[in-house]
Amino acid sequence: MPDFTIETLGKCAVDSPLKLAEDSGSGIPVFVPEDHYIYYNIEHVLGSRADGQPPLSRDQLLEVAGPRQKIYFSPSHVHAGVVTCGGLCPGLNDVIRAIVRSLWHLYGVRRISGIRYGYKGFLPEYGLEVVPLDPDVVDDIHKIGGTMLGTSRGGGDRTSEIVDTIEQLNLNILFAIGGDGTQKGALAIAEEIERRGLKIAVVGIPKTVDNDIEFVEKTFGFDTAVVKASEAVAAAHMEAHSQINGIGLVKLMGRDSGFIAVQTVLAVHEANFVLIPEVPFDLEGPQGFLSMLERRLSRRGHAVIVVAEGAGQHFFHQEVAYDASGNRKLGDIGLYLKDQIQAYFSEKHIEINLKYIDPSYMIRSAIAEPIDSMYCERLGNNAVHAAMAGKTKMLIGLVNNEFVHIPIRAATSKRKQVNPEGSLWRDAIEATQQPVQMVNPK
Amino acid sequence: MPDFTIETLGKCAVDSPLKLAEDSGSGIPVFVPEDHYIYYNIEHVLGSRADGQPPLSRDQLLEVAGPRQKIYFSPSHVHAGVVTCGGLCPGLNDVIRAIVRSLWHLYGVRRISGIRYGYKGFLPEYGLEVVPLDPDVVDDIHKIGGTMLGTSRGGGDRTSEIVDTIEQLNLNILFAIGGDGTQKGALAIAEEIERRGLKIAVVGIPKTVDNDIEFVEKTFGFDTAVVKASEAVAAAHMEAHSQINGIGLVKLMGRDSGFIAVQTVLAVHEANFVLIPEVPFDLEGPQGFLSMLERRLSRRGHAVIVVAEGAGQHFFHQEVAYDASGNRKLGDIGLYLKDQIQAYFSEKHIEINLKYIDPSYMIRSAIAEPIDSMYCERLGNNAVHAAMAGKTKMLIGLVNNEFVHIPIRAATSKRKQVNPEGSLWRDAIEATQQPVQMVNPK
Amino acid sequence: MPDFTIETLGKCAVDSPLKLAEDSGSGIPVFVPEDHYIYYNIEHVLGSRADGQPPLSRDQLLEVAGPRQKIYFSPSHVHAGVVTCGGLCPGLNDVIRAIVRSLWHLYGVRRISGIRYGYKGFLPEYGLEVVPLDPDVVDDIHKIGGTMLGTSRGGGDRTSEIVDTIEQLNLNILFAIGGDGTQKGALAIAEEIERRGLKIAVVGIPKTVDNDIEFVEKTFGFDTAVVKASEAVAAAHMEAHSQINGIGLVKLMGRDSGFIAVQTVLAVHEANFVLIPEVPFDLEGPQGFLSMLERRLSRRGHAVIVVAEGAGQHFFHQEVAYDASGNRKLGDIGLYLKDQIQAYFSEKHIEINLKYIDPSYMIRSAIAEPIDSMYCERLGNNAVHAAMAGKTKMLIGLVNNEFVHIPIRAATSKRKQVNPEGSLWRDAIEATQQPVQMVNPK
Amino acid sequence: MPDFTIETLGKCAVDSPLKLAEDSGSGIPVFVPEDHYIYYNIEHVLGSRADGQPPLSRDQLLEVAGPRQKIYFSPSHVHAGVVTCGGLCPGLNDVIRAIVRSLWHLYGVRRISGIRYGYKGFLPEYGLEVVPLDPDVVDDIHKIGGTMLGTSRGGGDRTSEIVDTIEQLNLNILFAIGGDGTQKGALAIAEEIERRGLKIAVVGIPKTVDNDIEFVEKTFGFDTAVVKASEAVAAAHMEAHSQINGIGLVKLMGRDSGFIAVQTVLAVHEANFVLIPEVPFDLEGPQGFLSMLERRLSRRGHAVIVVAEGAGQHFFHQEVAYDASGNRKLGDIGLYLKDQIQAYFSEKHIEINLKYIDPSYMIRSAIAEPIDSMYCERLGNNAVHAAMAGKTKMLIGLVNNEFVHIPIRAATSKRKQVNPEGSLWRDAIEATQQPVQMVNPK
Repeated sequence: MPDFTIETLGKCAVDSPLKLAEDSGSGIPVFVPEDHYIYYNIEHVLGSRADGQPPLSRDQLLEVAGPRQKIYFSPSHVHAGVVTCGGLCPGLNDVIRAIVRSLWHLYGVRRISGIRYGYKGFLPEYGLEVVPLDPDVVDDIHKIGGTMLGTSRGGGDRTSEIVDTIEQLNLNILFAIGGDGTQKGALAIAEEIERRGLKIAVVGIPKTVDNDIEFVEKTFGFDTAVVKASEAVAAAHMEAHSQINGIGLVKLMGRDSGFIAVQTVLAVHEANFVLIPEVPFDLEGPQGFLSMLERRLSRRGHAVIVVAEGAGQHFFHQEVAYDASGNRKLGDIGLYLKDQIQAYFSEKHIEINLKYIDPSYMIRSAIAEPIDSMYCERLGNNAVHAAMAGKTKMLIGLVNNEFVHIPIRAATSKRKQVNPEGSLWRDAIEATQQPVQMVNPK
Repeated sequence: MPDFTIETLGKCAVDSPLKLAEDSGSGIPVFVPEDHYIYYNIEHVLGSRADGQPPLSRDQLLEVAGPRQKIYFSPSHVHAGVVTCGGLCPGLNDVIRAIVRSLWHLYGVRRISGIRYGYKGFLPEYGLEVVPLDPDVVDDIHKIGGTMLGTSRGGGDRTSEIVDTIEQLNLNILFAIGGDGTQKGALAIAEEIERRGLKIAVVGIPKTVDNDIEFVEKTFGFDTAVVKASEAVAAAHMEAHSQINGIGLVKLMGRDSGFIAVQTVLAVHEANFVLIPEVPFDLEGPQGFLSMLERRLSRRGHAVIVVAEGAGQHFFHQEVAYDASGNRKLGDIGLYLKDQIQAYFSEKHIEINLKYIDPSYMIRSAIAEPIDSMYCERLGNNAVHAAMAGKTKMLIGLVNNEFVHIPIRAATSKRKQVNPEGSLWRDAIEATQQPVQMVNPK
Repeated sequence: MPDFTIETLGKCAVDSPLKLAEDSGSGIPVFVPEDHYIYYNIEHVLGSRADGQPPLSRDQLLEVAGPRQKIYFSPSHVHAGVVTCGGLCPGLNDVIRAIVRSLWHLYGVRRISGIRYGYKGFLPEYGLEVVPLDPDVVDDIHKIGGTMLGTSRGGGDRTSEIVDTIEQLNLNILFAIGGDGTQKGALAIAEEIERRGLKIAVVGIPKTVDNDIEFVEKTFGFDTAVVKASEAVAAAHMEAHSQINGIGLVKLMGRDSGFIAVQTVLAVHEANFVLIPEVPFDLEGPQGFLSMLERRLSRRGHAVIVVAEGAGQHFFHQEVAYDASGNRKLGDIGLYLKDQIQAYFSEKHIEINLKYIDPSYMIRSAIAEPIDSMYCERLGNNAVHAAMAGKTKMLIGLVNNEFVHIPIRAATSKRKQVNPEGSLWRDAIEATQQPVQMVNPK
Repeated sequence: MPDFTIETLGKCAVDSPLKLAEDSGSGIPVFVPEDHYIYYNIEHVLGSRADGQPPLSRDQLLEVAGPRQKIYFSPSHVHAGVVTCGGLCPGLNDVIRAIVRSLWHLYGVRRISGIRYGYKGFLPEYGLEVVPLDPDVVDDIHKIGGTMLGTSRGGGDRTSEIVDTIEQLNLNILFAIGGDGTQKGALAIAEEIERRGLKIAVVGIPKTVDNDIEFVEKTFGFDTAVVKASEAVAAAHMEAHSQINGIGLVKLMGRDSGFIAVQTVLAVHEANFVLIPEVPFDLEGPQGFLSMLERRLSRRGHAVIVVAEGAGQHFFHQEVAYDASGNRKLGDIGLYLKDQIQAYFSEKHIEINLKYIDPSYMIRSAIAEPIDSMYCERLGNNAVHAAMAGKTKMLIGLVNNEFVHIPIRAATSKRKQVNPEGSLWRDAIEATQQPVQMVNPK
């Protein structure tokens, strides 16, 4: 278990301008005390060695997010920057809007700058101007998909130049909205800031449509992704159901983690196979996927398959390459499966009608669904509270349904994955009724 | 804290037909052991008396839901009944579908009966036939709102007659989908069953669009309700924003608990006032709501107000009456506020344009959003696992993001409410920027 | 049949800046010649007196809309104004956007002003500033409901003051987006302009969610209204279908004309009664509506009723009063029916469960559906083409699927209504299966 | 101009069971007299040779659809069949539902059979059973996409075998729902029926998501297709707008006709180029598309391109091949453009970010939007009226906003296309602001 201790820039000596209660009992919201934590691990086995024992070391505790009574920055001195990095994700504009409105309305901060097109916006060769942000500028952006600041992949490794620009802009808070690579970049930036002896808070808001940030229960945009993915799977089902031996094949996002695929399968109720990176499967052989697909077709006349983009990578014998975000390039499992299925049934002279759907860009650019909007609003609020309290090298996460502070180092230590032995995967294969394993005995 | 111990019908001696792993390590989903629990209370204050101490008594532990390796009922002997009671709620059909499919496909149960129109369907004077349920019958019902079984309010107090019918039907499992009143009825039925020495499992799935079941993090249909409510508030905002001194007033559901109102305000970002049952407010006086509304109008030219139906009941001096579900009849705060606002500004000769929206029936009858469908699927699965294991007088709930078993008695002991001192309400009033309190000093 | 001749400000002597073809044959779009017309009346009875005769006088011909090769205004001299009046309607922002973009991009007009809050924006006592409009300002407004200019009812009768302001602003084109009252106001404004010897084009874009502008096939926002109304009727059906003797009652817009009610009933397939202003009906008596409703309930156990707000006004014996838009105030037929139905069945001791839905404000404030957006885009383009060609006292309409110019005087001469003997009403009652007449014989 | 005369099976001697009025004046819907027609061509050029002349020969007149007072078939003797062929299209289930309900409720027909999986369902080797249809079976199918009967391509050329099956089933009405190929097949079937001296009415309902049936103003499903396509283009715009030199490229349906592409571009307001089969364009050269794209990018930093699948086929030098529906196989212009764009900018060392979206299957399987549902309802009603009156070899179309009868031979004589010189294309290029022509001078 990693260290969950949150770093701060220094002592909080400024009174918060928020009009909240100091202590409970007044009937109005209270400031969050610095000693409030929640348990990370909530599982308990009766009669186990742990039973009746103090179950928690400090490592198991996560700091609760929210406004502090004493803050680090004097609001009138703050110049905050916001940057969005990596691929699009529903809710980016909602988070930007929440940050700007919280800074402005709650704390009275009047200098807020948007950095354009991701970390590249800090680099001199792009010559990009910052965008001044205020509540009027962001008023309606949540009704529009994408990010009003623009985004790009890469650039986050040019830490020194980025901090040069941060110094030139005279920022003392940086909000970095992005995925694993972005947060690692943010950490490196914060370390360079520290090295230079500067007092600049770096607070991350994790953004990954794959929902694969470790320790974080759910990243923003994920619910919207499931909604949109569900439409695609419903379409595939309609196509499959209306054809003789119809097969609908949908490739969903999920490089290392099959969360979107799994939740979509649970949401739609109409997929018959779900294939994810965490669970290996064979194509050929009596227990392999193709054989199981044939059995399903002969029994029901149609089939719907959902595959996460990172599934079945062992079928590709390519050299390892990486994109600008530092993500390993994947073999295209969707097209591969499509070809393999067609070849298999063609060889057997069985007529099939396969329709292949890849809805990924329609998912990424979607406007956030209300559930995500709500979440983004709260993430943004809490990120502002953390930054104003001088917390740094941390991000805002939801754990056990509570907003907490998580050190970036901990959250980027590994990717969160679907547990193949756990209840989520269990419910998914109960929903599809696919075999518990599609691997041939050796 | 109430007792969380789950009652069972007897010893589980039947091998589950599910093909899951006995122990972890095999890479496939495992049966849930009977000794697996989670903590209910996850808060921890550093340095408090509890720090470093065994924090948990048995009362703090909730039994984890899921399939057991040994079950109580032999599937071939099972005749399961399903009943839906009370007002409509998005997801009812999804839950019915999940129960039927889990019983049929996972356990091989072949006798499943739907009771029509709620508890009234058990009463002889209605003469209602049961509906035979199988996977074909329920195949597409999740694409349609409402409940395929029909529903009604009341009837749950005629316990003896209901159990007579249950005996005549020879049911050994009853799934009761409904709210607080329905669950209390289910408990009374289970107690009557016990009194008669019968072995019939009664398992509840809590249904309340208000999300006010104690201990349960979120009830199904709630997310869909927020989505639909958000559309109404967005409409109110458009109307208000397009008129001179435009006021949009939206009444949302929430008899005792303002969860829908609060979450909608967080989702939409465009309300300026949210009024809920948990937080008292004055209308008149310098700190009262009307004065604050006038201030808002003079500053911005429009205002959006969200009010939960149970808010401000102290304005009504009516006799207490109850509807068939046993709910106290409420004064209509929406129309009351509308009149008060119009009178206030009329007296001040200020032209306003007020539009009043009450979207409640459009919310209740909505088709479940994918996030809710997913949740319903898992609730239904877990309800079946519990019932097959002979658990009774309990319902399925989500706590700290885990599916658990909760005794009906505990869950109906009181209503869950928004904590006026907590982070949810804090974020809501940060979103609206309304005053922390709208009560005049005495 | 009224006179369809279109008035112009004078001779068109300026070359259009549009790069279109003069004549057909070049494979690129052509300017619309001034002598192009379409037939208004397309019906023909074989063997009738008209058969084989020249069927058309000039009165039967409508001028085709579109860009002219010679225009009246020199674009660099144009200052155009845009005003939106009356209730909200989906698509207002789309029309504003299309007008601004066409003026700017096609003709190079650089001075465009939005008048705020309807005709009141011209009146000195409101002291409202105009909004400078350009493509950037309107870029995203179509993603938001309402009107970015604001709107109000009334004020259009203060013609002299309005024209004073138009002169002060030095406008030479005015686009008036609004319903019957707004267009009558626009005509009065144009007449006052003429009286003063000014050369200012007044072009209307008819806006009425009721779709009741004479000669115009369909007004913008109507399709969106049907989409949203359909959701309400579907909700009513779900409620009705899930209850014992469930009745869903939906009141839709339609003061004088039942188009929304009729088209919604055809779209949803699930209503059992549709009541519109054009078709009288009795409540009581053996052939009356209540008796028919009882018959439906006893046969099917539920019923859905759609009523246009202007239906059944003969039940109200109130004095005639008018609102600020000059519309006669209506008795509330929705609540009246609700009460009558409840009283009827209560007297007969028949348990019913009635749910009443009035979705009107959620309809008016909706974002335009794509079909409407497309239509708004084309209406706006054609309005600009007409204005630049110096046409005035006219509006843009769709007739027989072609965009044409219609004199405001003709279009406001009476309201368009559903023909009770025609195919639309016939299809509607075939869809509901209601009796062809619900009137008792005298 | 083709012959618009409608063929019938014989004299109509049976009284219609519909309770409509014989003549106008009664205030209730009237039967449509056999001599009612509408003009097809409504254009008129003032002062032209035609001016003042009888403009119409019989060839210009289309028979008005609707119920006849005298019908051909005695309802109790009717056995009607319904078949859906070709690719999916929104609204198929709505049309099936309307046909079944009209036959059943209006005419009292009690034998209605659905043929499974298109024309293949008539062929003996598939051994497919027919599906008995009644109002209960079709009650909720309109809430589900696809076709409840299933569909397939091809088989329509095996006329003799199909008519054998029709005889065995003892059908006397066949409703054929499908596109150009299906209707040609239906005509061949009707001719074979005639050859055998049988009295079987064959009535088509044209189904083509491309909207390319000659004479028919709009085919069902088209509006829904535009709605769904608009979502894809909006997504492409979001992606393009959020990236440095972002390019969104969307391929839409439209083999021979660019209607979906053109209407979508008008609906979305955010595309910068639309490429359709009817309008040729160059890729290379100073006036070519790539050069224009570069210009757009350098000016605005992003671009959205909509291309119909049949556009630019002159770039492919492949042999002509056909699919099972008899459609010519097309080169994939979407992927081709993607490659060409990437190569062009790569060579110029300009960084672009291109996202390619192909939403076709999500469009085809969509549930019909309310506007389409309404249209399907009326198409189905009118098809039943025509068939009961013994009309054959014809289909139902909408022309100049009226439902009419069109001979299949006329409607399949050629494909309807976007007129590159007309107002629709003009408005489209005004919306995109693309050059009027992208062809280099020779």
